[in-house]
Amino acid sequence: MSKILVFGHKNPDTDTITSALVYAYLKQQLGVDAEAVRLGEVNNETAFALEKFGFDAPRLVEKVAPEAAEVILVDHNEFQQSAEDIQDVTISEVIDHHRIANFETANPLYYRAEPVGCTATILNKMFKENDVEVPANYAGLMLSAIVSDTLLLKSPTCTPQDVKAATELAAKAGVNLEEYGLAMLKAGADLSDKSLEDLLSLDAKEFEMGSSKVIIAQVNAVDVNDVLSRQAELELLLNKEVAEKGLDLFFFVVTDILNNNSVAVPAGYLATRSAEAFGTILVNNQIELKGIVSRKKQIVPTLTEVFQ
Amino acid sequence: MSKILVFGHKNPDTDTITSALVYAYLKQQLGVDAEAVRLGEVNNETAFALEKFGFDAPRLVEKVAPEAAEVILVDHNEFQQSAEDIQDVTISEVIDHHRIANFETANPLYYRAEPVGCTATILNKMFKENDVEVPANYAGLMLSAIVSDTLLLKSPTCTPQDVKAATELAAKAGVNLEEYGLAMLKAGADLSDKSLEDLLSLDAKEFEMGSSKVIIAQVNAVDVNDVLSRQAELELLLNKEVAEKGLDLFFFVVTDILNNNSVAVPAGYLATRSAEAFGTILVNNQIELKGIVSRKKQIVPTLTEVFQ
Repeated sequence: MSKILVFGHKNPDTDTITSALVYAYLKQQLGVDAEAVRLGEVNNETAFALEKFGFDAPRLVEKVAPEAAEVILVDHNEFQQSAEDIQDVTISEVIDHHRIANFETANPLYYRAEPVGCTATILNKMFKENDVEVPANYAGLMLSAIVSDTLLLKSPTCTPQDVKAATELAAKAGVNLEEYGLAMLKAGADLSDKSLEDLLSLDAKEFEMGSSKVIIAQVNAVDVNDVLSRQAELELLLNKEVAEKGLDLFFFVVTDILNNNSVAVPAGYLATRSAEAFGTILVNNQIELKGIVSRKKQIVPTLTEVFQ
Repeated sequence: MSKILVFGHKNPDTDTITSALVYAYLKQQLGVDAEAVRLGEVNNETAFALEKFGFDAPRLVEKVAPEAAEVILVDHNEFQQSAEDIQDVTISEVIDHHRIANFETANPLYYRAEPVGCTATILNKMFKENDVEVPANYAGLMLSAIVSDTLLLKSPTCTPQDVKAATELAAKAGVNLEEYGLAMLKAGADLSDKSLEDLLSLDAKEFEMGSSKVIIAQVNAVDVNDVLSRQAELELLLNKEVAEKGLDLFFFVVTDILNNNSVAVPAGYLATRSAEAFGTILVNNQIELKGIVSRKKQIVPTLTEVFQ
């Protein structure tokens, strides 16, 4: 059996990177020649987690077909978020916690999606189902993914399963959940070394909503004004992206990780309608998103419903 | 919580009908108000299984949105095989063993697909995972589904998991696997009360392959000549379907359940290419499919690859 590549989405976040590492490890224990790879740069938050638990980042690849006939997707399924040449390989498994869209296979596969806060929460169950022990360092990776995706268990995406898994994994990893979690989130929210260009692509995902092409980027911050103070420059960049990529909407979201609110700056001809989708209006070209922190559960469904 | 409808595909087969009944039962045991329904007539094989284990067929519905906001799909995912108004409801779960295509949700969901021979094989695991005992009559339904989908464990779709589940379920249901299985398949292959029109729709599924619209219908027979002796009349009907539904291909397959071979009669402008897809040519407008019995594993992927 030839090598199987395991990877998450483009513009990788902590769940995507760690889930690739963790699931590749689990598959290896089950006798599969699996290797974790990544489709983009590792962000500050993920780098903090990898270093804490003694891992190198997975190898960076752009295309997957030249080196593998078979791949496993973690933490995503939509083809526009995946490897460029995803249609040229066989997807044998998907482990994910997102909606399903723009995904298609010719053959039956193992597809496991659960409506939980984090891919790692599903992977933690899969270790048990397969009677494989979770080593302390891999427990640390999974814990980091849950903290990241649920904003330290505070996001509305967080389920009792995520809380249970995080508690269990923190114990296995030998760290204090709250202390380690906040330190990791703060490392990710440290935007001091980031240009505005970086912020646009750091955690950007593309979606097809009806016939509209939408990018939603999200940045975590301890103080949203670190970003919003540069709004004029930001809008120039957003409009440039809209023009270059033929977008109907670029929805740029800054999330306050301490107070669990967000502010969006939209660009593209659907900007006004994107504000209306949240029952509000554009003020100074910003949309105030009170209590909204989850792209997956609060932003994507709201925009999808209006644009479809 | 309001009622959740559980159903399989149009032109229901034994796995689709029984999996709806079985999974609705499991969800009920877990405290969910679930009801199994069906999207079409019950075939002879399924009627035999339902009667044997003392079940009525689920209620027939055409639309689902008028009576439920939330639905669970079993044994299918492609929208053109589902309820007409499937896009108007929330799909909260899918339990399936087919490829994924033309399927999309706005929200995360529980999606469980495994590359096994039958939905019932997955459901049998889910009873165990949820610590719910399988009653003898429901074991009989699941056994019937496995026998049907794997042609009594002989189809290439059949996996060791299906064999194990069938053996276990036959014991629970108190029947002899071989004897009961053959009797059920023969009941399904009894075409004496069927018109050719019936045969065209009995187990027909629609697929989008690239830009091509394809229907693949499959009929089981003890003697394929029961059907092929009426080929002239059959071709008239196939061409009528092609014209009325704007099809690129109607691929009609008669499967010899005793010898595990098939013969296809194709109609539509892709007929010649459909023969080429199997490395053969049309002879008397028939395609000989030696050793081919599985639409899912042998026919759909072969045609998809050529038409995409």
